[in-house]
Amino acid sequence: MCQAVTKKQVMLHGADYNPEQWAHDEAIFEEDLRLMKKAKVNVMSVGIFSWAKLEPEEGIFDFNWLDTIINRLYDNGISVFLATPTGARPTWMSEKYPEVLRVTKQRQRNLHGMRHNHCYTSPVYREKTTIMNTKLAERYSAHPAVLGWHISNEYGGDCHCDYCQQAFREWVKDKYETLDALNHAWWTTFWSHTYTSFTQVESPAPHGEEFVHGQNIDWKRFVTDQTLDFYRHEVKPLKEKNANIPVTANFMELFEGLNYDRFKDDLDIVSWDSYPTWHFEESDLDVASYTAMNHDWFRSLKDGKPFLLMESTPSLTNWQAISKLKKPGVHHLSSLQAVAHGSDSVQYFQWRKSRGSSEKFHGAVVDHVGHEHTRVFKDVAAVGASLETLAEVVGTRIDAKVALIFDTENRWAINDAQGPRNSGVHYEKTVLEHYRGLVAQGVNVDVISSERDLSTYALVVAPMLYMVRSGIGEKIEAYVEQGGTFVSTYWSGIVNETDLTYLGGFPGPLRKTLGIWSEEIDALRDEEYNQASALTGNALMLNGRYRIKELCDLAHTETATTLMTYDQDFYRGYPALTVNHLGKGQAFYQAARFELDFQCDFYRQLIDQLGIARALDTNLPEGVSVSRRENSEAAYIFVMNFNQRPVTLALKETFKEVLTKETLSGHLALEAFGVAVLKQVK
Amino acid sequence: MCQAVTKKQVMLHGADYNPEQWAHDEAIFEEDLRLMKKAKVNVMSVGIFSWAKLEPEEGIFDFNWLDTIINRLYDNGISVFLATPTGARPTWMSEKYPEVLRVTKQRQRNLHGMRHNHCYTSPVYREKTTIMNTKLAERYSAHPAVLGWHISNEYGGDCHCDYCQQAFREWVKDKYETLDALNHAWWTTFWSHTYTSFTQVESPAPHGEEFVHGQNIDWKRFVTDQTLDFYRHEVKPLKEKNANIPVTANFMELFEGLNYDRFKDDLDIVSWDSYPTWHFEESDLDVASYTAMNHDWFRSLKDGKPFLLMESTPSLTNWQAISKLKKPGVHHLSSLQAVAHGSDSVQYFQWRKSRGSSEKFHGAVVDHVGHEHTRVFKDVAAVGASLETLAEVVGTRIDAKVALIFDTENRWAINDAQGPRNSGVHYEKTVLEHYRGLVAQGVNVDVISSERDLSTYALVVAPMLYMVRSGIGEKIEAYVEQGGTFVSTYWSGIVNETDLTYLGGFPGPLRKTLGIWSEEIDALRDEEYNQASALTGNALMLNGRYRIKELCDLAHTETATTLMTYDQDFYRGYPALTVNHLGKGQAFYQAARFELDFQCDFYRQLIDQLGIARALDTNLPEGVSVSRRENSEAAYIFVMNFNQRPVTLALKETFKEVLTKETLSGHLALEAFGVAVLKQVK
Amino acid sequence: MCQAVTKKQVMLHGADYNPEQWAHDEAIFEEDLRLMKKAKVNVMSVGIFSWAKLEPEEGIFDFNWLDTIINRLYDNGISVFLATPTGARPTWMSEKYPEVLRVTKQRQRNLHGMRHNHCYTSPVYREKTTIMNTKLAERYSAHPAVLGWHISNEYGGDCHCDYCQQAFREWVKDKYETLDALNHAWWTTFWSHTYTSFTQVESPAPHGEEFVHGQNIDWKRFVTDQTLDFYRHEVKPLKEKNANIPVTANFMELFEGLNYDRFKDDLDIVSWDSYPTWHFEESDLDVASYTAMNHDWFRSLKDGKPFLLMESTPSLTNWQAISKLKKPGVHHLSSLQAVAHGSDSVQYFQWRKSRGSSEKFHGAVVDHVGHEHTRVFKDVAAVGASLETLAEVVGTRIDAKVALIFDTENRWAINDAQGPRNSGVHYEKTVLEHYRGLVAQGVNVDVISSERDLSTYALVVAPMLYMVRSGIGEKIEAYVEQGGTFVSTYWSGIVNETDLTYLGGFPGPLRKTLGIWSEEIDALRDEEYNQASALTGNALMLNGRYRIKELCDLAHTETATTLMTYDQDFYRGYPALTVNHLGKGQAFYQAARFELDFQCDFYRQLIDQLGIARALDTNLPEGVSVSRRENSEAAYIFVMNFNQRPVTLALKETFKEVLTKETLSGHLALEAFGVAVLKQVK
Repeated sequence: MCQAVTKKQVMLHGADYNPEQWAHDEAIFEEDLRLMKKAKVNVMSVGIFSWAKLEPEEGIFDFNWLDTIINRLYDNGISVFLATPTGARPTWMSEKYPEVLRVTKQRQRNLHGMRHNHCYTSPVYREKTTIMNTKLAERYSAHPAVLGWHISNEYGGDCHCDYCQQAFREWVKDKYETLDALNHAWWTTFWSHTYTSFTQVESPAPHGEEFVHGQNIDWKRFVTDQTLDFYRHEVKPLKEKNANIPVTANFMELFEGLNYDRFKDDLDIVSWDSYPTWHFEESDLDVASYTAMNHDWFRSLKDGKPFLLMESTPSLTNWQAISKLKKPGVHHLSSLQAVAHGSDSVQYFQWRKSRGSSEKFHGAVVDHVGHEHTRVFKDVAAVGASLETLAEVVGTRIDAKVALIFDTENRWAINDAQGPRNSGVHYEKTVLEHYRGLVAQGVNVDVISSERDLSTYALVVAPMLYMVRSGIGEKIEAYVEQGGTFVSTYWSGIVNETDLTYLGGFPGPLRKTLGIWSEEIDALRDEEYNQASALTGNALMLNGRYRIKELCDLAHTETATTLMTYDQDFYRGYPALTVNHLGKGQAFYQAARFELDFQCDFYRQLIDQLGIARALDTNLPEGVSVSRRENSEAAYIFVMNFNQRPVTLALKETFKEVLTKETLSGHLALEAFGVAVLKQVK
Repeated sequence: MCQAVTKKQVMLHGADYNPEQWAHDEAIFEEDLRLMKKAKVNVMSVGIFSWAKLEPEEGIFDFNWLDTIINRLYDNGISVFLATPTGARPTWMSEKYPEVLRVTKQRQRNLHGMRHNHCYTSPVYREKTTIMNTKLAERYSAHPAVLGWHISNEYGGDCHCDYCQQAFREWVKDKYETLDALNHAWWTTFWSHTYTSFTQVESPAPHGEEFVHGQNIDWKRFVTDQTLDFYRHEVKPLKEKNANIPVTANFMELFEGLNYDRFKDDLDIVSWDSYPTWHFEESDLDVASYTAMNHDWFRSLKDGKPFLLMESTPSLTNWQAISKLKKPGVHHLSSLQAVAHGSDSVQYFQWRKSRGSSEKFHGAVVDHVGHEHTRVFKDVAAVGASLETLAEVVGTRIDAKVALIFDTENRWAINDAQGPRNSGVHYEKTVLEHYRGLVAQGVNVDVISSERDLSTYALVVAPMLYMVRSGIGEKIEAYVEQGGTFVSTYWSGIVNETDLTYLGGFPGPLRKTLGIWSEEIDALRDEEYNQASALTGNALMLNGRYRIKELCDLAHTETATTLMTYDQDFYRGYPALTVNHLGKGQAFYQAARFELDFQCDFYRQLIDQLGIARALDTNLPEGVSVSRRENSEAAYIFVMNFNQRPVTLALKETFKEVLTKETLSGHLALEAFGVAVLKQVK
Repeated sequence: MCQAVTKKQVMLHGADYNPEQWAHDEAIFEEDLRLMKKAKVNVMSVGIFSWAKLEPEEGIFDFNWLDTIINRLYDNGISVFLATPTGARPTWMSEKYPEVLRVTKQRQRNLHGMRHNHCYTSPVYREKTTIMNTKLAERYSAHPAVLGWHISNEYGGDCHCDYCQQAFREWVKDKYETLDALNHAWWTTFWSHTYTSFTQVESPAPHGEEFVHGQNIDWKRFVTDQTLDFYRHEVKPLKEKNANIPVTANFMELFEGLNYDRFKDDLDIVSWDSYPTWHFEESDLDVASYTAMNHDWFRSLKDGKPFLLMESTPSLTNWQAISKLKKPGVHHLSSLQAVAHGSDSVQYFQWRKSRGSSEKFHGAVVDHVGHEHTRVFKDVAAVGASLETLAEVVGTRIDAKVALIFDTENRWAINDAQGPRNSGVHYEKTVLEHYRGLVAQGVNVDVISSERDLSTYALVVAPMLYMVRSGIGEKIEAYVEQGGTFVSTYWSGIVNETDLTYLGGFPGPLRKTLGIWSEEIDALRDEEYNQASALTGNALMLNGRYRIKELCDLAHTETATTLMTYDQDFYRGYPALTVNHLGKGQAFYQAARFELDFQCDFYRQLIDQLGIARALDTNLPEGVSVSRRENSEAAYIFVMNFNQRPVTLALKETFKEVLTKETLSGHLALEAFGVAVLKQVK
């Protein structure tokens, strides 16, 4: 983990900082330094969109202003994440070299504008990037203020220019080597699409081909690979100058455009930008779970190593449907939720609100009014104070015995598929429901791709594992045979890595593990439901009836045992929940989409059965979440109340509460949106 | 009608077959032959998307694989419909000759991709088609397995390339001869659109002209004519080799893009692809009626000659909003519904499910599991068995005394009109409601264009006959004068064939026939209703009040008599239903959009009054439909229960039930989704 | 005001007239003349889309037909508004000079088609316009039938061609002079958008830049300026020939595309096209208020000088979602509503219904039936009779003591802003609610831009005055200091003229006037509400609780006094309504979006407090509206009942009713949709 300029272990607290917007008024920078101390911040992300300022004309560079910024910050005890400025480019560059601009899938070249609009293949853009990043590295990689490199900004999107088409053709040729292999993988015989030359391959297009799913998914893989290649191209000159400065790239919540899993070995630290929609619904429990799952997903990218919350808003956003103020306590709770799930920072976009352009109403630490006497500024300062007390938590890790598979390639494939329910199969929501069923039990959960090692987990859950790539089925089977517990659902084991269906019976490579054969799958209308009843004496001791929606698998048990059956329609009596014993382990199959109430009951029974330890040994009221970070000396149990009302929990041990330094025993009382950090010395 | 390779009169049973997708595994073809026998199929449609396989490089042809397929099928007693492969083209062709690809109405040329994407004017595409079709004809038109030609696949769409623009200009010039005639017909003086040269004529475009309705409808006519011309171009080399092999082109349900009426003389057999959305709503009665109307529409294209059900799904589709499994009995009922309405075949898309690309989850006879031990396969085999028992029905015809006018050009014009209710005038739904009112009485109904001969019908119904082309009004008037009964509605007799309004009073050429003058028409909001009450002692003995919606005509009777009047709004008391006596006949006018309950009552009274014979002399429970096919020796009465519960009907005669070979008298009991075929020997 | 050919002061009554559509049948023109007399019309707008007829080939002109039309109308006592024909152009012009056609923001050049599709910068189009308008002026500007020039038709839209890009760059350079000034004004440092050359400036584009709000609003200003420049270019040759003939351009309701305020000095008379959606909802009160506000807006453009209702429909439109017939009385009421609010005309689109093309079902005086025996024709003739009795009202003016600021640039800026409620801040609806609150009190209201002089008003209301351009804040402050009463709301005083936020505290330049500091603003979900309660003894004597929605400002009083506070959420107790006393005046601040009930109560109390005289001294039932026109001799009080039921009002004086010539005292009874005009001699 990075060390702040204080050289002490600190929780990072800071913001994106764009002082070039205020260069016309020098007093503002000095005022900012004064306010930064008041807000207890210790890090600023600088240079994110500064290319036009750093290179105002082609080949003419100006770093003096940046020197001043970094030096003065350093003088005031503030470190920086220094960005490469490739997230946007100067207008002169687009004017002189239109090739740096993206081409849409409709094959129209964009005009200059917006941001994140570069072609990642363009030789000119790559050359200009190398020049710029080299100069930044030369000048700043030895600067003691520089904590790390912030590479570009929120990578995303694709480009369909001729350079990218050519690169895609080469990528396809590298992958498949022969046209026969390509034609088989993409099943081109269908609709007479057989390729007779690699030159015929094109990216998907609305006025061309968008229905060859193997091609679609390969294009998405190519986009990830090409973006990663551009990222590596950015990092190269930085690492050449100083390999010790860590690099990160800020990722986005539940982002589908890139397979972040492929970046994990190239990042020194994972960071992401979190913009939860607090209060968009009457209850905040959905958004709290959703945000927690994102934290767990990003943390799990690098095997549990602490990550950074690179951006969040100190108050509201301006780009969502409504811009809601955070109620008292929420900013503090939201910030500490990140820490609870493994972040060693709380950072904001942005320090000072812009006066103009599209984000001038996005919340910032310093508002247009310009002073510190605002509710938002005080909230930020309070988070700063809490983070100081949490310095000892820095570097602690989360030990999870439960893994939830949320696989980006699977997601691409499911969402691109035609059938069985084009009005929505809701992969992401389904994964989130399993996540909520799990965390309601008070256990830490890793959220991982299906590529990861499973051997350390007591329980692996893989909802809707539609795409089972080569080796994955075998890995899961071995995991179960060696004693693991596996849970999967309908619409699993359907296709291989190029989206060709498995032949011989679904769920394909999971059939032996799950012990069932899935013959057909039925889709329900919105507002149409089926129901499942638990069989008497079932192995999980489940009781009663649960509502079912959207998709119902018609499966036959082979080696599995039925725990629940459907109540309605012509498949009444067919299995709705089964378990299969294989080797030392077991594998459950949910044949239909149950709802949240079922997942809570199901995972309570299962975690009890497996004896997985809770983060805190108590009954959790609804809306209260726990997370446990630990090192060899102590554990820190974050207890978070996402309800708009106070709650009380029973405590079976005595704890020191880190924020207040009080000693707690008997019970823990939390205000509405309150949070406590219980320390358990080992 | 075609004769299968058995040389016996058989109901055809088969599927689209694409063995080229499985060419890498020879065992699969042999397994298919085994399964085909089990499924009791006797025909396969082959070659539909095989161009890339038949001509893998330009001018290099490979028919050996197709020889094998056809020969081996023939050896196993299976005939083929042999397709011309123009529904998709090889990638090499698009690459070398981009002119074969369509240009959108935005004037952008498509990239290679999808299917049904050719320019029907392109000289290159026509040349390549002639070469291919000639080779197919030379090789296969004498093959005993070949039952008929399946021309291309689901023709549709339009192209706006320069070739098509030029062809459209020539078409316009041929039609109008002078610019004055063109300018008058399209009323171009409005908004200063006067054409001063034929070179100025363009197809409609969102960034050009889309509001000149005469131009829009002529473009649609041109597209039909150009597609028909392409079809004839395809057929020419086939017929030159063997004029005896019948040709068909598979049509699509309620398809608006082409005026199928114009194809009728060029088809030897009509065929269509039916994909009813069973179970998409709680009740299946809507979809059953909708499907029946389509059957009747396609059958009526060639004056009642049996048609072919060319495609249907043995289980579910993958391209609709939800993919619902058919409940037990539904596949059998749905298949026999086609036969009941005049089909001599039941065929599927497709035989074996694809492994990849966009339709890999579309239902097929042989599922990915690969064996016959599936519910779907058993359903198909059961249909095969029933079709064997129905061999004697082959060639029988339907005699309808009732005609319902559903006119494609009228539909184009109504749907393109601006006003009187841009939020929806619902022509198709209105026609369907009249259809349901009629078939609920147990009578056979022909569904025809307004061009057809009316003289054989006792009753002709023409809802919303907005466009009355030259001669049509006179024909209807003569029909009534000679004793016919005619029913029409509001929004009839408004425009002539180029969409110019009639002057001097609506309903224009129907005014004398209907005996009313329509002064104005009012539109109701969604959820706004009016009501009509029957006058005491009206000629149809209607009683009570009926709800009215959407459109209310303010008409004045001239020679007509009022049967019902409006109850509400300032036109309370205006006529809502009138009848006019002219010569030996009568003409009813529904002044507003009534709902289904009214149509059922109205047509019950009317059919009783006219004494039109029911297909079966009994009271039909709701959801039970009958259809009667007959020849000189016998009549076959199909009784179909579309309810999810059993029903019982009283029988006044004794019948032999063809499927079970039982003798029935007194009553007929049908299971949920059950069907019976009652034979009445003459 | 124009004088009709009768040379007497008359209310104008007429229609758009396009006899060139009927040139093939000479009898129709003669029949039209007969019908015009029956309808009591005295003016026709001719030549609006006649370019193709006037110049059928380039450089070949034909005015003979137009001579005949104008002369024969004149002979029959009918004047004309003569149009320049630039609203559409001949096909030959688009064919030969594609540059006259617009380029969309996607940078695609349109094809010939539609109307209002010209580039206002194109040198060719300008040259052709000059030639045409010069010829029209030479031939007709001395014709006694010509009442005025009708310039083009419903100007609107923008063009993104290279000519327009160049013109925009010059406009920007003229405005900002230096790149530094431009970059500051558009805040281009954000996202690295700094311009280093004026050649880099482009119009907004979906595939370029659409998020730089300063750029967006300058583009809109440029479009207005360029359209105005084109308008001036059109007018120049007309005025050169005869400066005495007044010019007008027909404007559109609530049109956002142009800032009409910039045209006011270039128009001799304001005119507009009104198409209220009568009966689209159960109650007509919304549409009546909306239409009244439009009348007041257009009248206020030229400081209360009478305007012209240039277009309206005598029955229904054909381009709205539903085409509803007007109920009895509504056409008369709707027509007189225009007069009540300051119109000296009632004109229609169009005289005779087209036979073809897109508006053939748009209501017209003469329907397709061709005779006068229709309800619509009789309604028109009845309006003609009423207008004759109202001749003495011509030229009277409306004296309003209340001004409502509805500012087009503010509207552009609010609607382009991102945040605080992208799902809708509803500026227009909010302005309308204030308008309704005001007119429910029976006072005349001017609807003005924020540029206007305020000194004559007793009350100025400026809801959501987000953009306060230079000098406006100071003007308002001075207005209040000198004794004015000012009302504003949340989301005011946020940005300056280039959409840069004010620093130092909102509401920026209104802060001293309103006496509050707005710290934050919260957005509510749809269906989420807060509530405000009146404080005991508040200065407006308001009582009770009012519902609040959408936006809630968190303001702190500085010099203001709180009248109401929020009831809910964490800002319970914060001010919801305040008043500030400054100099001799006062300023109210509504901190949140109240609903209509509140505005009615608020303005009742306020108008009572201010002692502003009502147009008629009586209690107005809901749905009854009054408007008062006057000159030095008399006042004319229009009393209009927009309810579907009769109402009775108490009268405190005796009046002569102008339409019926009856003398009224004690009370006034109005039928459903009835109207009376009470004359009060001074």
